[in-house]
Amino acid sequence: MTFRRVAIIGLGLLGGSIGLAVREHLPGTTTLGYDADPAVRQRARELELCQTIADDPVAAVTGADLVILCVPVGAMGAAALAMAPGLSADVVVSDVGSSKQSIAAALSAALPDHVVIPAHPVAGTEQSGPDAGFASLFHHRWCIITPPETAPADKVDMLAAFWRALGATVEVMEAGHHDKVLAVTSHIPHLIAYTIVGTASDLEQVTQGEVIKYSAGGFRDFTRIAASDPTMWRDVFLHNKDAVLEMMDRFLTDLALMREAIKAEDGETMFDLFTRTRAVRRGIVEQGQDDARPDFGRHDHDGAEPGNSQ
Amino acid sequence: MTFRRVAIIGLGLLGGSIGLAVREHLPGTTTLGYDADPAVRQRARELELCQTIADDPVAAVTGADLVILCVPVGAMGAAALAMAPGLSADVVVSDVGSSKQSIAAALSAALPDHVVIPAHPVAGTEQSGPDAGFASLFHHRWCIITPPETAPADKVDMLAAFWRALGATVEVMEAGHHDKVLAVTSHIPHLIAYTIVGTASDLEQVTQGEVIKYSAGGFRDFTRIAASDPTMWRDVFLHNKDAVLEMMDRFLTDLALMREAIKAEDGETMFDLFTRTRAVRRGIVEQGQDDARPDFGRHDHDGAEPGNSQ
Repeated sequence: MTFRRVAIIGLGLLGGSIGLAVREHLPGTTTLGYDADPAVRQRARELELCQTIADDPVAAVTGADLVILCVPVGAMGAAALAMAPGLSADVVVSDVGSSKQSIAAALSAALPDHVVIPAHPVAGTEQSGPDAGFASLFHHRWCIITPPETAPADKVDMLAAFWRALGATVEVMEAGHHDKVLAVTSHIPHLIAYTIVGTASDLEQVTQGEVIKYSAGGFRDFTRIAASDPTMWRDVFLHNKDAVLEMMDRFLTDLALMREAIKAEDGETMFDLFTRTRAVRRGIVEQGQDDARPDFGRHDHDGAEPGNSQ
Repeated sequence: MTFRRVAIIGLGLLGGSIGLAVREHLPGTTTLGYDADPAVRQRARELELCQTIADDPVAAVTGADLVILCVPVGAMGAAALAMAPGLSADVVVSDVGSSKQSIAAALSAALPDHVVIPAHPVAGTEQSGPDAGFASLFHHRWCIITPPETAPADKVDMLAAFWRALGATVEVMEAGHHDKVLAVTSHIPHLIAYTIVGTASDLEQVTQGEVIKYSAGGFRDFTRIAASDPTMWRDVFLHNKDAVLEMMDRFLTDLALMREAIKAEDGETMFDLFTRTRAVRRGIVEQGQDDARPDFGRHDHDGAEPGNSQ
């Protein structure tokens, strides 16, 4: 059993990539798309992100057996209500949001009579909008499905099979645990990156031009994350508030300890931490989640272009 | 006028790369190398990082008209004293350290009668050791030279020409300003990355396996920086203490504001910052200091492998 007709609501990086990936990996499946922004719908038609781009959400979801909401976390509830009249009784409603508890609550409140199975493909880039999507976005990436206890097992299996078909590796997780895991692996790193880039561009003694010029020293890795979609990330922090604040306070405690170590010129404490963190990096490279080559697979016109530098 | 005989003291990532780059770009120049670690000297011979690898520093620098110290910042003074007896009167002594004020002081104290011109090529990777070097490491990278007022202009020009020959773009800067700029663009990003990776691997509710597994959400960009050489970075923080603490306190103030914004669910403050930081990223991509492709030039065996993900 696979889905025959998939509706994608929201045609940015994620929604557009799902449309392109379905066309590549599930040619027998029909795709319909909708975006609240007419300009995005127009661009989606030009890019053929879906077979059909509808001009209203009800038309987009009519007859669909899978609907995937790809809108910012804060817009999920409203998007669900807007399409509700078009939903068939046996449809599976899912999403791609980065916080799962708040979305599960919003969607079940908006669609009390439908099967809702939230999901989160841990994939993306700092690009956004309909032009940012590409069919291989989900290859070798995790997709975390957080089904409510009431979700029918066969529907969960169908959704898992759908994501596997798009190239992802599926993990089933409790929504609350997902939110803590992603707070650490994604939300806090983004918040830190946004903050330090802001700090650096506000300095008097160091110009923004100098910050940009010498960014290869490590800073530029933060700027890439800090270029991610502002609306999406505002919503993530608003909707995963508790887990983000909890993890942030852990980080602040540890950073205060490092500050003390520097102040006290306690080289041993620094050396111990700096040695420990190398093992985490090794694990990531070993599990194929990053590229260990000195240039991280980057190439400029005449050879290696190292990423982080010292 | 160019240097004919270059001695490289310390044969890790930077020292080894200089040796390989001189062979490629300055075939007329003789290279001599030394490392305090016999195993590194042996490996350097196997890799032919320099034409000659000496077993003591005095022999390595004898007859050299340029000596480049490529040892951790904290070891500069001792390395200078160890080689001092072999230095010729007209030699230029330089280095590649990431903090310039402390090194200028250490080297001029150790070598009061010699021309010392500190420099910092803003290039490297998180790899370290003699096997990590490659000849193109300095291509399209900045090299910041911080000459003391007493440095002869012709020697400064010769050192600048040397780095340009290796592919770098040279900037002359006052040492104290360099230390502030690099605290922002390199030292603080490294300290933050080391800290958050440590925080993440110490959590009880989220296992280290989960952190590694879902690192594509943004975390892995931090782990790459946090895999950098522990000794080198301990020394950087010990020797650029004041600038690092100053910039860190700016960052902590801004992070506290973001924490308050999340707590107060002040989406506007977040959105404003997240929008502002995109401009900094654009500047870095426009200046060729990073790759704007969605996969940052990374490729796995069957297509794009996005870097940071959401």
